[in-house]
Amino acid sequence: MGAPDEKLLSLNTATVRQQWQLPDIIAGCARHSIRGIAPWRDQVAAAGLKEVAARIRDSELTVTGYCRGGMFPATDGASRRAARDDNKRAVDEALTLSAQCLVLVVGGLPKNREGRIDSKDLLGAREMVRDGIGELLEYARPAGMPLAIEPLHPMYAADRACVNTMEHANDLCDELGAGVGIAVDAYHVWWDPHLKREIERAAGGASGKGTSRLLAYHICDWLVPTTDLLTDRGMMGDGVIDLPLLRSWMDGGGYRGMHEVEIFSANNWWKRDPDEVLATCKVRHRDCS
Amino acid sequence: MGAPDEKLLSLNTATVRQQWQLPDIIAGCARHSIRGIAPWRDQVAAAGLKEVAARIRDSELTVTGYCRGGMFPATDGASRRAARDDNKRAVDEALTLSAQCLVLVVGGLPKNREGRIDSKDLLGAREMVRDGIGELLEYARPAGMPLAIEPLHPMYAADRACVNTMEHANDLCDELGAGVGIAVDAYHVWWDPHLKREIERAAGGASGKGTSRLLAYHICDWLVPTTDLLTDRGMMGDGVIDLPLLRSWMDGGGYRGMHEVEIFSANNWWKRDPDEVLATCKVRHRDCS
Repeated sequence: MGAPDEKLLSLNTATVRQQWQLPDIIAGCARHSIRGIAPWRDQVAAAGLKEVAARIRDSELTVTGYCRGGMFPATDGASRRAARDDNKRAVDEALTLSAQCLVLVVGGLPKNREGRIDSKDLLGAREMVRDGIGELLEYARPAGMPLAIEPLHPMYAADRACVNTMEHANDLCDELGAGVGIAVDAYHVWWDPHLKREIERAAGGASGKGTSRLLAYHICDWLVPTTDLLTDRGMMGDGVIDLPLLRSWMDGGGYRGMHEVEIFSANNWWKRDPDEVLATCKVRHRDCS
Repeated sequence: MGAPDEKLLSLNTATVRQQWQLPDIIAGCARHSIRGIAPWRDQVAAAGLKEVAARIRDSELTVTGYCRGGMFPATDGASRRAARDDNKRAVDEALTLSAQCLVLVVGGLPKNREGRIDSKDLLGAREMVRDGIGELLEYARPAGMPLAIEPLHPMYAADRACVNTMEHANDLCDELGAGVGIAVDAYHVWWDPHLKREIERAAGGASGKGTSRLLAYHICDWLVPTTDLLTDRGMMGDGVIDLPLLRSWMDGGGYRGMHEVEIFSANNWWKRDPDEVLATCKVRHRDCS
């Protein structure tokens, strides 16, 4: 594997969210010749959707994904309806931003109106996820906004996403049909013994249509030890994931999209000079992924 | 599901390891009418193997597992040979204790002589695990000590065990043949969409011999939020795992062994009066598992 094309680097804005507002991040990408960006809804809302869309367009940034929709499971109908309506707004915003996909963090065990988990029915949660994506697809598909299921690491099964493997995501895509694909995040799936097989399956389009479901590729690294389940992700090269190997599998599957760096790091990268963070992302993307 | 038979409760000694030495734990089990125990090697070494074996025998405790062998992957031959010899000693000790199985935490990515991970070759690590268990089987099988592969949660793939699903453990059992089975720990596998299928597979003996591979069943609970990857496990009932459902799957597979409570809890149960911990284990085993 040679080094990846530096033009393929994209920045998930969570990586510097503690230091910069979204307009700063967009300017930072331009300054560091980073050509892709994946913004979060709260940052977009804070800066104004139209304003952000204009700045991104002016900077000629590719929006590799919009973070995020999902969070489907809930024990009461009102909460499920609220999630449905909010997800439709996310689709609209993703369209305004010309995002390549809306990333779905599908949600974990069903929560009540107060946002607390009040069910242990994991199978039921997975059915709610399937139904929720299916319903959103009826809105997103004709609008032309691809939905990207992001399988999250199993340590988030309870509270963030009960889709935890590529196989499960592929099964959902099989069931739900056109308009839905997968965001592959190295941090979440690197451990999976079926990863290569399921990337190939996603690439080949098991639906028989021959279209690839590989909508996005996120990178960071798994640190040893990991001191926090949420906010102790590593910069590429600082951990144990064989990122060049994973990229070779994505490439082998015909993925030609960007490589989006997404690092939640409360005690390290979120405390550093954000220009240093972006410069490091560039070097490590080239040398360690 | 009715409540489980209280006679099936076993105590993994890690649950009160911060408060009590092993002789205290054995006495505590007798005092609380807990009939099973699963001791750790360091505790046994501290108290003396023969002394421990005699106390356990006198207390008529079933040893539901001996913790633990494994840690096979290493980048240098000397370390692998050291692990091999140490694992043979673990088999010998398990025999002396009349343990029902030797639990294997198989190890993660290969480490060097200093004990630091120095390879990202996860596939290679999994081959080392297969070879290591295969070699240990040649010693354990004729000695009559079953080896129990414990699939660990994927968040331990790097540093503790690169066997992270029941399916992978079943595949290893298929390949390695008689003498090796699986320790099912609810904490590690509850999230797995194939859990029921793979418990059934383990129960039916996919090797065609009709013998069950279900050698042990460990219980605790998954807390939300989980604040530490290692030492924030919950008492049954305090988390989100549907333990009665999992027990019904084990029962449905013909598992008639004990239910071993194993809780690593630095900030809660390890700080409490150990008699309170044991009393709580009894109540929660009855009411929440």
